[in-house]
Amino acid sequence: LFVSTDPQKVSEFGEDGLMARIAQRIGPPARDEIWSGDDSAVVRSPGPRTLFTTDLMVEHVDFDLAYASGYDVGWKVIAVNVSDIAAMGGRPGRAVATLTLRPDAMVSFVDALLDGMLAAAEEWGTALVGGDISRGSELSVGVALIGEVTDPVTRSGAQPGNAICVTGSLGGAAGGLIALRRRMAGPGPTEGHGFSVDLKGALERLAARQLRPRARLEEGTALARAGATSMIDLSDGLAVDLARVVEASGVGCRVEPGDVPVDEDLAALASAVTDESIDPVVLALTGGEDFELLCTLPRERIEDATATLGELGTSLSVIGWITDEGRSIGNAELDRWRERGWDHLRGR
Amino acid sequence: LFVSTDPQKVSEFGEDGLMARIAQRIGPPARDEIWSGDDSAVVRSPGPRTLFTTDLMVEHVDFDLAYASGYDVGWKVIAVNVSDIAAMGGRPGRAVATLTLRPDAMVSFVDALLDGMLAAAEEWGTALVGGDISRGSELSVGVALIGEVTDPVTRSGAQPGNAICVTGSLGGAAGGLIALRRRMAGPGPTEGHGFSVDLKGALERLAARQLRPRARLEEGTALARAGATSMIDLSDGLAVDLARVVEASGVGCRVEPGDVPVDEDLAALASAVTDESIDPVVLALTGGEDFELLCTLPRERIEDATATLGELGTSLSVIGWITDEGRSIGNAELDRWRERGWDHLRGR
Repeated sequence: LFVSTDPQKVSEFGEDGLMARIAQRIGPPARDEIWSGDDSAVVRSPGPRTLFTTDLMVEHVDFDLAYASGYDVGWKVIAVNVSDIAAMGGRPGRAVATLTLRPDAMVSFVDALLDGMLAAAEEWGTALVGGDISRGSELSVGVALIGEVTDPVTRSGAQPGNAICVTGSLGGAAGGLIALRRRMAGPGPTEGHGFSVDLKGALERLAARQLRPRARLEEGTALARAGATSMIDLSDGLAVDLARVVEASGVGCRVEPGDVPVDEDLAALASAVTDESIDPVVLALTGGEDFELLCTLPRERIEDATATLGELGTSLSVIGWITDEGRSIGNAELDRWRERGWDHLRGR
Repeated sequence: LFVSTDPQKVSEFGEDGLMARIAQRIGPPARDEIWSGDDSAVVRSPGPRTLFTTDLMVEHVDFDLAYASGYDVGWKVIAVNVSDIAAMGGRPGRAVATLTLRPDAMVSFVDALLDGMLAAAEEWGTALVGGDISRGSELSVGVALIGEVTDPVTRSGAQPGNAICVTGSLGGAAGGLIALRRRMAGPGPTEGHGFSVDLKGALERLAARQLRPRARLEEGTALARAGATSMIDLSDGLAVDLARVVEASGVGCRVEPGDVPVDEDLAALASAVTDESIDPVVLALTGGEDFELLCTLPRERIEDATATLGELGTSLSVIGWITDEGRSIGNAELDRWRERGWDHLRGR
C-alpha cells in the first residue's frame, strides 16, 4: 500500500480533508438544499418526472493525462452527462460524482478537475452537490445527473418518412484526438513548430472539440418543441448511434454521406498528416464524442426546426431519411460502418 | 489493448451487447417510466425534496474477489447507498450504476454482480434503471441513488444532553474481513477444517456482515419519527463517524466503551486467532462497514425510540452523551481512536 508523506498528495490529505476542500470549492448550498458533507444531499425535486443518467470516464480509455488536463477531464464528464439530458429534450438539475484517485495524485490535480466540473456545471445551469472518493490504480470520474423533462424524446419514435437531422458538424472530436495523440496540438506540442498560423488554429479547434465538448442543451429542448420524433446524442459516432435509433424504432434508414456536415478543420488535419490517410468524411461518419444531437423530424417540421436552431447560432443538416427497411450509409450497409465506431468494452 | 475472442468475456460481448443483456435482466420499466436503453432514464420524481447520494466500490480497496463473489459486490454497493438514504431518515427511489470492467471479465461475473444488485434493490424497494460501462484495469462499481424525505435528519443537529445511540451491534463487519482474509470463512476456507460447528457458524455470520451488509432502512425512518436530532450510518467506524457528527454539530461527546454493543461472534474470532491479539471492543469502536445507524436523541425520547426499534427486532443502545466540549471514548481522546478508523485515500 502506497502511503505518501507529501502533504500535497491526496493520500496525505486524507478522505475527510479532501472532502472538506471539495465542499469549500463547491460553495454554499442553494436555499433549502443540503450539499456535500452529509450522508446524502437533499435537493429540490425537478418536477413530476425526473431524468436520471450517469456517465463514467476512465483514464487511458476515455482520456489520457498526456494531453488532457484535470480541468479538461472535469469539464468533459459534466458535459457528456448534460448531453444525455439534452438528448431527451430535458434540463439538467443536480449532479453527484465519484472519483477514483491514485494515492500519489496531487491535490492540485483534484482542484483542477473540480474547477473544470464546476465551470461546466455553471455553463449549463447544474450544480455538483456531493460525491464519493476512493483510491484506485487508475483515475476515473463518474457523474450522475438528474434533470427535468415534460415530454421526453426517446430513441424509439423514428417513423418512416422522417428526416434524419444532425446539429453542427461531425468528426471534429475524433480529429482532435488524432492531433492530440500526435502532439500536433494541446499542451507542449512538439510537432507543430513549423505549422502555419491557420493550421495551428484548425488543430487547436479540433483539440478543443475533443477536450472541451459542448452539450447541445438549448438545441435539445428546441428540437423537442419543434416535434422531434426521436433523438440521441452522438457519443460513439454517427454510425453506431444512428443504428441505436433505427434499432429502437424498428425502422430503416438511408444516409447520404455527401450531406453529412463534416467539421471544416478536418481538411487541415488531413493535409498535415502525411504518413496516414485521413478521410474527413469517414471521421464524420464514425468518429465519436462530437456530442452533437441526431434527431428525426417529420418532413413538415424541418423548416421550423432549422429556423429555431438558426436563432441559437446552430446549423441543422438533413443527412438522410428514415425508411421502412434497409439500413445504409451511401452504398454500404450501416452495420459495416458501425463496426468502425467506438465500443467502450472492446476499445474499438 | 486486450481483445479477447472468448464469447463469454465482456470484450467480445461488446458494450451494446452487454447493455442489452443487462436491460433484459433489469426487466420492464415501471408504468410511465423509461429505464435502460435511452440517453437517460425517466422516472417518477420522489416528492418535493429529493435525496441524492452516490457510493463507489473499488476492487482491492473496498473488496477483493479472493473472498467476495460478484453477487456479494452487487448486493453491497446497493446496500451502502440505501444506508446513506436511511441515515437521512428517507426512503430510496431509483438507482443508476457505473461499472468499470477488465476486458477479460467474464459475462457470468457481470450476471452475478447484477443479480446481487437486483436482489438488494428488491429488498429495499429501489430499482436499477440505467448505467454506464467502461473498460479499466480494475473492477469498480458505482451507484447513484435518489430518494425521498420530508424532514431530513442531518449530522449537524446533535445537542448537548442528547444521548448517543447505535442500532444493533458493532465490529462484526471488521471481524468478518479478518476471517475472510485469513480464509477462516467464505469460499473454500482452508483454515477452518478443524473448527467446531459453533465456531464455524460464528465466523460465517461475521463474514456475512462484511459481504452482505443490511441497510437499516426501517430503523432510519423510525428514528427520524422518534425525534433523532442527528444521524449517520457507521461506514468508516464508530470513532470516525461519531467525530463527523460532533464536528458538524459543534459539540462534544463522551462514550462509554463498556456500553458499546459488541458483535457477539467476535469472541469466537478472537479465540480462534492465536497469532494476533484481537480485541472485540477495539473492533467495535474502530471497525468500519457495519452500516448500523448512530443517532442522537433527547433524553425523553430514548424509551419511545427503543420500543419502536424493538418492534422491528432491532436493539438500540445508549453508548454515551453529547456534551458541550471535550471528545472522548473512555479515557482516550476521540481523535486517538479516530486515527485507527478507515480512510479511503490513506487505506488505513
